[in-house]
Amino acid sequence: MITTIEKQTGTAFRLKKGQWLKVTDPKGEQVSDMVLFNALDKAEKLSSGKTLDFEETLLITKGHHLWSNRSNKMMRIVEDTNGRNDFLLAPCSPETFQIMYQNSDYHPSCFENLHTNLAPFEILPDDIPTAFNIFMNVQFAANGKLSVEPPMSKAGDYMLFEAMMDLIVGLTACSAEMSNNYSFKPVQYEILERSPAS
Amino acid sequence: MITTIEKQTGTAFRLKKGQWLKVTDPKGEQVSDMVLFNALDKAEKLSSGKTLDFEETLLITKGHHLWSNRSNKMMRIVEDTNGRNDFLLAPCSPETFQIMYQNSDYHPSCFENLHTNLAPFEILPDDIPTAFNIFMNVQFAANGKLSVEPPMSKAGDYMLFEAMMDLIVGLTACSAEMSNNYSFKPVQYEILERSPAS
Repeated sequence: MITTIEKQTGTAFRLKKGQWLKVTDPKGEQVSDMVLFNALDKAEKLSSGKTLDFEETLLITKGHHLWSNRSNKMMRIVEDTNGRNDFLLAPCSPETFQIMYQNSDYHPSCFENLHTNLAPFEILPDDIPTAFNIFMNVQFAANGKLSVEPPMSKAGDYMLFEAMMDLIVGLTACSAEMSNNYSFKPVQYEILERSPAS
Repeated sequence: MITTIEKQTGTAFRLKKGQWLKVTDPKGEQVSDMVLFNALDKAEKLSSGKTLDFEETLLITKGHHLWSNRSNKMMRIVEDTNGRNDFLLAPCSPETFQIMYQNSDYHPSCFENLHTNLAPFEILPDDIPTAFNIFMNVQFAANGKLSVEPPMSKAGDYMLFEAMMDLIVGLTACSAEMSNNYSFKPVQYEILERSPAS
């Protein structure tokens, strides 16, 4: 069953060890922020620092794993039809829009959409780690300078993940203007009992 | 008063808003991992994702701030005589040596040296964030590949930080072979009531 995450919203759900998660960009140029928690012990969660360390690259894609703060594999990346994702930048939050966009009005954000949807799992706002930002296109220059560019994903691009432990997953259709080429679109996901290819 | 952190050990201490912290590499080529917590509410802590986002660079140095998971400035970097630091990789942990060094024997680690020294402040191992790795030299290639190279710091190089809030600081003399050019040395620190230059 394909579920749609409407633009500038989010969701959270359980994913059992061995199940597969397919995350699709149905219209193109849309980012989805994903966070992961061990369903059996929520103090274990996704870690950018551990993932970049163990995979020895800034660019996490097919063949890599997403690692936890306790150095365990949380997901294996089975497929990535686009190939450009970000694991550097924190989910956009109300302060992102105040500090980086000089917008002090209310603005939807991945941070709010993650913590409100994860609240029923007793996960607090302060528990939200740096997300794995599917299809987010953050370019880095040789001098370290970071720039957020339009996603390179086309309509129908997807990533496929295998759960390596029982997980709670938080997932959004990202709300930040610059990250999505100034047009907000939905994200779709599907939970599969096994790889579609097998 | 200059305090020495012996090789492959760590410490933790309070730093008041407005105080300055000087961290020195007395012998050269030695990394020091630093983590920060809001002393008044320890769920607020150092965030690599927020810092890289707000500062818009991979290379954090003089003139930048270290930001919290709640988007507040925790420290201002007043001086950095070397200029190359890392804010990508998680503190070395027992699993680092098992997974990356194929060493299953006991090995001191920044992670252990941080959480054991922060335990008296009621900070748990799972609370330890990605550290700001002073003088750690992580090179990134255009294709994203990361490599840990010898620190470029010379004997006497230092960083000077101003506390922007009341802090609990965890600080190590890093224990990982590759990060310190295969030679473990001490780190020194000093708490100052104002900038030595002012």
